[in-house]
Amino acid sequence: MLAPAAALGIDLITLANSSEDSAAQSSPHVIGDFRDLDVVRQFAKSCDLVTFEHELIPISIIRTLENEGIKFQPNSNSFQYSQDKALMREKLAHLPNPKWQVVTEAIDWSYPAIAKSVSGGYDGRGVWKVNSKLELAELLKVVPTLLLEELIEFDFEIAVMVARSAHGQAATWSPTRTVQRDGICIETVTPVPEFNEAQAERAQALALQIADEIKLVGVMAVEMFVKGDQLFINELALRPHNSGHWTIEGSVTSQFEQHLRAVLDLPLGDTTLTSKWAVMGNILGGSKSDMYRPYLHLMARTPALKFHYYRKEVRPGRKLGHVTITGTNLLELRQEVDHALAYLSGEIDE
Amino acid sequence: MLAPAAALGIDLITLANSSEDSAAQSSPHVIGDFRDLDVVRQFAKSCDLVTFEHELIPISIIRTLENEGIKFQPNSNSFQYSQDKALMREKLAHLPNPKWQVVTEAIDWSYPAIAKSVSGGYDGRGVWKVNSKLELAELLKVVPTLLLEELIEFDFEIAVMVARSAHGQAATWSPTRTVQRDGICIETVTPVPEFNEAQAERAQALALQIADEIKLVGVMAVEMFVKGDQLFINELALRPHNSGHWTIEGSVTSQFEQHLRAVLDLPLGDTTLTSKWAVMGNILGGSKSDMYRPYLHLMARTPALKFHYYRKEVRPGRKLGHVTITGTNLLELRQEVDHALAYLSGEIDE
Repeated sequence: MLAPAAALGIDLITLANSSEDSAAQSSPHVIGDFRDLDVVRQFAKSCDLVTFEHELIPISIIRTLENEGIKFQPNSNSFQYSQDKALMREKLAHLPNPKWQVVTEAIDWSYPAIAKSVSGGYDGRGVWKVNSKLELAELLKVVPTLLLEELIEFDFEIAVMVARSAHGQAATWSPTRTVQRDGICIETVTPVPEFNEAQAERAQALALQIADEIKLVGVMAVEMFVKGDQLFINELALRPHNSGHWTIEGSVTSQFEQHLRAVLDLPLGDTTLTSKWAVMGNILGGSKSDMYRPYLHLMARTPALKFHYYRKEVRPGRKLGHVTITGTNLLELRQEVDHALAYLSGEIDE
Repeated sequence: MLAPAAALGIDLITLANSSEDSAAQSSPHVIGDFRDLDVVRQFAKSCDLVTFEHELIPISIIRTLENEGIKFQPNSNSFQYSQDKALMREKLAHLPNPKWQVVTEAIDWSYPAIAKSVSGGYDGRGVWKVNSKLELAELLKVVPTLLLEELIEFDFEIAVMVARSAHGQAATWSPTRTVQRDGICIETVTPVPEFNEAQAERAQALALQIADEIKLVGVMAVEMFVKGDQLFINELALRPHNSGHWTIEGSVTSQFEQHLRAVLDLPLGDTTLTSKWAVMGNILGGSKSDMYRPYLHLMARTPALKFHYYRKEVRPGRKLGHVTITGTNLLELRQEVDHALAYLSGEIDE
């Protein structure tokens, strides 16, 4: 999804895992395994700068190649805080976190609690609710080191997208309300309907502070819990993020264009919303294996709905794409998105 | 510029003239000469459907390959009306045209008049003002067949973008005021500031009628002269067109996405403006050979300005890219675009 931003005049080349990747189908590319040091080295040597739009590239590869003089943005010193959740908590310990502790053996604690694998979690994977010291002990037999966190009984979850360029110019977008189901974000609403201006600004200020402290270069999603007047940092994602997809149509500058501006140290773009509201819904694989006919039906039903299809094989629960709609009537916009998601997943037939 | 629309889930592959082409730098591509029948045939055989975003591909190639069973959209029966200006006048003779006549010898006529080469004109090339029968006679020695047209003393020029899909669904965008300098469009303003709603609708109805009559499939720009209450058809361009570039940011559905929807017979998208006004300016090569530093300066000055850089070598007068800005204050928007163009071309220094 970075490809359209090449209108900025950038020579963008993608290292794609296979020719079936959506990235390979929408930009000039090289095919290779991003987990293979030699492949990434060979690819990176043809570039002035390397960045990424997913976080699966091993940080050890980035570190090795940085030592060889290859430039990554964000670099490994920043990137480690989204890779290692314990390191993130430690780095940002002076900011509002849930109570946390790294454990290798079961301890007395206020249960129920959240246990997370220190690295590698994603979309609810690597995260467990533990109800007792005994349950923690059982989990530690499988995952020897865990980050134990206070279970926040939050009112709702938000994400704040933030961009920071190499020389320190930074910008945020309006905070986004994220709606989760089974640990997966299914919908976002921007701006956060429950926030007044001061609350929005406080969340943005926190995201800006984190970006500065970890010396972010690029864009980052700061996921937060909201409970009453309190904000708690949940996770960081140092890349264009699902919770920022609404910016493609909903903001003067999309997170993808902003990411390229930031990593190339160009002046950042305007992050104003283009409409009062932007609602994004993730298309998850459901009972329909042929998505094409329902897709045509929705295009005809709602000409203002913007489709982004990732061209992945349909599997139940898999993110296959997203839809976005912008406008002034939040209730109607959410109804359109909810209908589209339910129709595409096969939950409803019309 | 069609590449971003591949988010619709389309496998898009480009036949680019060289690896330096901006199309080659932003999409999967094959390198080859689009004027070479064998090259186009080889390329087209790998596609379900072939379309184009410029009009330089010879119609003879399209006709030959259509006879071999290859599908082009728009097809040669429609495309001929933008290739052959005399054929267009004849086909649309019942609609409001300037007075016209195809001539191979000098005739008595109301001079001054406009003479056009029947095919191949572009950006003011192939168009001459002839002041007398004698001048026409001189011109005919060089160009043996000419389309002679009444010189309309128009108030201003507009373009109406229209889309039509294979099964006949059609849509227009708001008419666009085009501002020309030396026969080249330097700026567009949408909607047309001088129009009321009825005038806009009349221009849109004319564009829709033309699309239907020539059985357009894809998008088309209908360039018109406006004189008082009268509209006159000037030219047709059967492709995403410079006068529709504002739709990328200024409309819910861009002309590029709409073109793909139309040629693939998908339901068409919403053509509503995203803001009250959209102003687009063409970046023409000027005295500055290094465009990079002024480009950075403008990005910093106007974060809401959207840049589209075509990565062509700088030559005076060449279209190197365009900028677009949207908003509510037309005067301010035009000032920003005028400043950007003057600064990038070297006319002003700050």
